[in-house]
Amino acid sequence: MNDGTLMPVSAAEIEWTDEADVVVAGLGVAGAAAAIEAARAGADVVALERLGGGGGAAAMSGGFIYLGGGTALQRALGFDDSVENMKSFMKAALGPGVDEAKIDVYCEGSVEHYDWLVGAGVVFDESFWGEPGWEPPHGEGLMYSGGENAAPFNATIPPAPRGHLPRRAAVTGGEQAGGYMLMKPLLDFVDDLGVRTLYDNSIRSLVVDDDGRVVGVVSRSFGNDMAIRARRGVVLATGSFAYDDTMLHDHAPQIEGRPAASIESHDGRSILMGQALGAATAHMDATEVAIFCDPQLMARGILVNGQGQRFVTEDTYPGRIGQATLLNQGGEAFVIIDEASYEEALTTESTSAMMRATPKWVCESVGELEAEIGLPTGSLSATVDLYNMHAANGTDPLFGKKSQWLKPISTPVAAYDLRGMTGGFTLGGLKTTVDSEVLHVSGVPIPGLYAAGRCTSGVCAGGYASGASLGDGSFFGRRAGVSAAAAG
Amino acid sequence: MNDGTLMPVSAAEIEWTDEADVVVAGLGVAGAAAAIEAARAGADVVALERLGGGGGAAAMSGGFIYLGGGTALQRALGFDDSVENMKSFMKAALGPGVDEAKIDVYCEGSVEHYDWLVGAGVVFDESFWGEPGWEPPHGEGLMYSGGENAAPFNATIPPAPRGHLPRRAAVTGGEQAGGYMLMKPLLDFVDDLGVRTLYDNSIRSLVVDDDGRVVGVVSRSFGNDMAIRARRGVVLATGSFAYDDTMLHDHAPQIEGRPAASIESHDGRSILMGQALGAATAHMDATEVAIFCDPQLMARGILVNGQGQRFVTEDTYPGRIGQATLLNQGGEAFVIIDEASYEEALTTESTSAMMRATPKWVCESVGELEAEIGLPTGSLSATVDLYNMHAANGTDPLFGKKSQWLKPISTPVAAYDLRGMTGGFTLGGLKTTVDSEVLHVSGVPIPGLYAAGRCTSGVCAGGYASGASLGDGSFFGRRAGVSAAAAG
Repeated sequence: MNDGTLMPVSAAEIEWTDEADVVVAGLGVAGAAAAIEAARAGADVVALERLGGGGGAAAMSGGFIYLGGGTALQRALGFDDSVENMKSFMKAALGPGVDEAKIDVYCEGSVEHYDWLVGAGVVFDESFWGEPGWEPPHGEGLMYSGGENAAPFNATIPPAPRGHLPRRAAVTGGEQAGGYMLMKPLLDFVDDLGVRTLYDNSIRSLVVDDDGRVVGVVSRSFGNDMAIRARRGVVLATGSFAYDDTMLHDHAPQIEGRPAASIESHDGRSILMGQALGAATAHMDATEVAIFCDPQLMARGILVNGQGQRFVTEDTYPGRIGQATLLNQGGEAFVIIDEASYEEALTTESTSAMMRATPKWVCESVGELEAEIGLPTGSLSATVDLYNMHAANGTDPLFGKKSQWLKPISTPVAAYDLRGMTGGFTLGGLKTTVDSEVLHVSGVPIPGLYAAGRCTSGVCAGGYASGASLGDGSFFGRRAGVSAAAAG
Repeated sequence: MNDGTLMPVSAAEIEWTDEADVVVAGLGVAGAAAAIEAARAGADVVALERLGGGGGAAAMSGGFIYLGGGTALQRALGFDDSVENMKSFMKAALGPGVDEAKIDVYCEGSVEHYDWLVGAGVVFDESFWGEPGWEPPHGEGLMYSGGENAAPFNATIPPAPRGHLPRRAAVTGGEQAGGYMLMKPLLDFVDDLGVRTLYDNSIRSLVVDDDGRVVGVVSRSFGNDMAIRARRGVVLATGSFAYDDTMLHDHAPQIEGRPAASIESHDGRSILMGQALGAATAHMDATEVAIFCDPQLMARGILVNGQGQRFVTEDTYPGRIGQATLLNQGGEAFVIIDEASYEEALTTESTSAMMRATPKWVCESVGELEAEIGLPTGSLSATVDLYNMHAANGTDPLFGKKSQWLKPISTPVAAYDLRGMTGGFTLGGLKTTVDSEVLHVSGVPIPGLYAAGRCTSGVCAGGYASGASLGDGSFFGRRAGVSAAAAG
């Protein structure tokens, strides 16, 4: 990105064309939450959205929001959860290197945040989906979404489901997914509060006064530049850098060429604009990693790497499987499943049923299958023998897979080829305080600048749980709006 | 680091107390190389060193310099190498995400760089060490130092040893290691060229003029601040951030609490000072990882993880084993070796002999050993059975270990516990051009600012080879000196 616009512009050189108390860049989940809270605090807010309508990547997502500590939905469905258990799980599963202060306030504020979303018009169905899967098949409101009920976490931290999903709505020709059903009420709320929304309007530069305070932005709409003064603060909320090739190469090369669950406007621009002012970043290498396989199949089979070895508990959150595959196994993975388990999986419900395509290999013996796949002679056989020996006793001492999924692998036996079947989005970005102030590398906030969502490093460092991005984006987006409205 | 000094200082507010054409911060290998080349180009150079003498982490290191493409030493010892093979290996082994342009110029300039070092007074012994090890035992001049002659690289890229080591010198009570024997002549050269060296002098801030050009530094010596004008340029060469807890937590948490092969003044300050001006960084998560075990033992045994599975070819560069252990296995590793191989290893020479402490467990059977270590029942037995079956035929289809190291594991059999036996230093830092200009996030160089060594991202992204840091530090240090002297 060598167009020079990333350099901050001096306020002395600007003729303002518009102004507001708070300028929000990006109308995905973080920007909408920021705009709402800034407006509710009495600020005059203008929100810029690069695309022709609001919603961002959030509106196209499944809609998971990671919440817990005893939300009304958890309680209604009979699940015990506590703030402490939620903290323990997030610190164990989303690291190493997590921002502990951020996780603390996130967990402590989670019950209130759920109520806030409901108050904003987001509807959660009082139903639970307990089967393996990426998403619940009928818009159920609650699901495990981070491996809480799987090894190694379930041995030490009492599990609770924390993936909260907005209820889907039937529309002509299908239904609206959870992400849309999250963003629709939030965007309506933005409008109802009188926030001015400027679409097809892309932030280009930050404007800084002589004291280094961010006092506005330059944006562009249909080729025309605007200079919008922000009397109190600017909130950056333009999403990840999953679609910027240079940034991926320099920071997260493992997903070069394979962005997923992201949108093309995620070009990392807000991160770079912040860095141009000396902002610190964190965990720029971290990525969510999806693996394109039905979890109903994975849980019933075993996953092996290019050496025919198991490497992860197959009944955990599929995003953990994706990370283990791409980050630790160089992207090499195969699902091994016998005919009986395959047939059983086909009878289950899953939103990932399109990932159940016919197995690539089907053989009468494990030895044949091993040869067909091209695994080292004896490797898969040894793995299956060891797995079967323990599975017959209902145990998995290697990875702690739960007994309900443990059954010796029989014949005929089949395999899916998952090489190249991973993709993801970036989790790193601007380093922010718990009040969503953007931190300078010297450790102090940059005056007038706030950020939230995937242009920031949030509650995740190395690990991931579905709902963590909509969760911290909306939670710290709200805080960005509150902070910006109170500044100046 | 919240003392405010990282904020750039305006030249308008400065009263200069000293000046030079080029100011170099840090007198390790990169700073010394920069000072030499700037002075040779006719610049008046002042070099600031935080400690009481020059040398930095380089002087305390083993002294490997990664060079190839047919250096005089390689040719004298009968090794064929080519620039293309060197490029291919570095791009395959040091990624993903390597800076290809940087590797290209590095490989193309490697033969000349070797000659330059020799011309500067660095002596390389015309001898080769071909045994597994971290360093050669007698100051031999050449050794494999990146896994070139091991799987998977040796199957496709003709291997050549590229670890060049300065000859050690006998001194009273022992001998000087290679790193000292590299830095001594370079520092003498610095002095001979008339570079002014200021010790106990630590850079505090960069000074910037109204156009954003770096025109000097503020430094501190024994509590007194100095403002040193740089008529042409400033070169940052103050080393890694392995000793800054916050930066490690935010970028490379895998080595939190376990810095190695680094020095306490490696606080990342140059990276932060660059970032305060909007500099880009790259691969801040990347780390070298040492594993504290004698490679003579590892090559003769097998390495297994907490599931009793092998995970790496045991005869490769031990730094690759360290990375595989810490990054992919959560730091869990055990060496399994039978009595005969153990006895054989004890007869070999190794600089890592102090890492041969008595094995933690010795048993009469693999099954007993597995139980003693606490590995899952049957796991290590299955691994050894599979390994032995192939080793009897002289093959290792899982990881490609060379036949010379393949022998079925017999009994009695022992194990070393390598959990917690890893440590390392950081490889990420400022993003620079092939001419060592520091790049702004907008993609253009920051005028007047140059950097080299481990405060920059060099030829390594994810992977590592011993000698890559002294190699790119000295190579791009020279380029920083040339560029700074030519600027202004």
